[in-house]
Amino acid sequence: MYTHAFQVSLHDADPAGILFFAHLFRHAHDAYEAFMAAAGFPLHTALEGGRVLMPLVHAEADYLGPLRHGDRVLVELRVERIGRTSFTVGCEFRRHGKQIAARTRTVHTVVERTSFRPVPVPEPLRQALEPHLLPTDPPEPDGATGLATP
Amino acid sequence: MYTHAFQVSLHDADPAGILFFAHLFRHAHDAYEAFMAAAGFPLHTALEGGRVLMPLVHAEADYLGPLRHGDRVLVELRVERIGRTSFTVGCEFRRHGKQIAARTRTVHTVVERTSFRPVPVPEPLRQALEPHLLPTDPPEPDGATGLATP
Amino acid sequence: MYTHAFQVSLHDADPAGILFFAHLFRHAHDAYEAFMAAAGFPLHTALEGGRVLMPLVHAEADYLGPLRHGDRVLVELRVERIGRTSFTVGCEFRRHGKQIAARTRTVHTVVERTSFRPVPVPEPLRQALEPHLLPTDPPEPDGATGLATP
Amino acid sequence: MYTHAFQVSLHDADPAGILFFAHLFRHAHDAYEAFMAAAGFPLHTALEGGRVLMPLVHAEADYLGPLRHGDRVLVELRVERIGRTSFTVGCEFRRHGKQIAARTRTVHTVVERTSFRPVPVPEPLRQALEPHLLPTDPPEPDGATGLATP
Repeated sequence: MYTHAFQVSLHDADPAGILFFAHLFRHAHDAYEAFMAAAGFPLHTALEGGRVLMPLVHAEADYLGPLRHGDRVLVELRVERIGRTSFTVGCEFRRHGKQIAARTRTVHTVVERTSFRPVPVPEPLRQALEPHLLPTDPPEPDGATGLATP
Repeated sequence: MYTHAFQVSLHDADPAGILFFAHLFRHAHDAYEAFMAAAGFPLHTALEGGRVLMPLVHAEADYLGPLRHGDRVLVELRVERIGRTSFTVGCEFRRHGKQIAARTRTVHTVVERTSFRPVPVPEPLRQALEPHLLPTDPPEPDGATGLATP
Repeated sequence: MYTHAFQVSLHDADPAGILFFAHLFRHAHDAYEAFMAAAGFPLHTALEGGRVLMPLVHAEADYLGPLRHGDRVLVELRVERIGRTSFTVGCEFRRHGKQIAARTRTVHTVVERTSFRPVPVPEPLRQALEPHLLPTDPPEPDGATGLATP
Repeated sequence: MYTHAFQVSLHDADPAGILFFAHLFRHAHDAYEAFMAAAGFPLHTALEGGRVLMPLVHAEADYLGPLRHGDRVLVELRVERIGRTSFTVGCEFRRHGKQIAARTRTVHTVVERTSFRPVPVPEPLRQALEPHLLPTDPPEPDGATGLATP
């Protein structure tokens, strides 16, 4: 499991002092970027030179409790699924490293850069993701994350 | 159905020229803020004086096609469900007013300001939301949006 | 003078209910994008096809009074200066169309896309900007906006 | 001198692959938040309980060279000036820890929470800031940062 940490900053928080919900996805993506770099696939390299892009086709979040300005948050990231042309990343956000305050799930497809047509997950990427593939508990229902994926 | 429009700006777009996925939620919330103000419940009034807050407990998006820097986007917002202590808002994002490029769904709970305990949707708010309640097509499966709601 | 309007949204405001200062620049850039499109130079076209980029070399803002969540803001934009390889844009932000709550100034250089070397402001762009060139009052001191420009 | 580090993320970068200028201020504020916490004045505590707020009255940035997606950036923060009711913070942003790619300066006033009237910098805050007060080189011209400060 890959871990990442951040602190809820002033610009993350709304007038109620709570993390604005959309910013959770920004932090989830920061964790994903750090994970991909650690896995040998830094996104900026992929974007610059690659013939493929990896746009998201689905994103979801559950907010279980408030994350407030100043809270330290631990993100636990796992690869939940590797499909033929897409993969799914899940994050759990622990407030002060303890209770889970939020969860995100993002589905990333691999597409050809200009046509935006799905192509198979490149083999080196698959091999880099596989060690981080952790079964969810309970197992996700068939197709739950595949709705929007080709 | 409530409509809202925006144009994908430079700061919305990533190095591939595509709307960064988390910013779709920012635009969905802008549409929701405009809708709530039109419905007589401007959020800034609620936040300042109210004894309740309306935090999101769930958010999800499907990205069906790229939204690019400069694209004009039409948002069609509907109230998908009004529960006892929460309500669900759905948005469809049409590129240049035509094909649907993305969808979002957000679930908002009503909570007491300090305890964060769910309380019933206030009657005036329920009455303001009801005219915008439109059945989804196909009907959403039971509980699909209620996972995280109390 | 070019005008643009927006409303301070929930995600613009910090826990004190005030516009987070950096977001003023986002709104200034939205006004600038709308202005450039109206002037015949939509940024997304320039970025896609052009051999030049127009990065900012300087940005500054003065905050004269709080802009709060829900405030309607009128932006008045003028071109303050057109130099050989750069131009300066000024915005005034009026709260509810009345008193000035903030000012921004941004200096944009024209550079060759790959080398990032300054090149002269293209003649068609100069002609598009000139009608909006308004002397500031009082006149800006010589070089005040040119510190960082080549 | 206080140091802070970050990496330019996907959502920081525009379609040209360059840090969107307004996001530099977000990173400057992150450095400032970290600095204030290290100095014993975490902003979230001040905002929650304090009778004062510390809004910015001025912000400026010079962009000397592009910061690109994936770049590692070192921020060097110093307190440039402590006035009666305000203080000035300067940041230098070094790309990969080497050449300076950008500079920011922000002027923070201390105001009474409800009236927004300037009040003297509280003595404990002054004492916390003073060890970080470093003369700029060359010395800043008189009043250069005080334009907007009371």
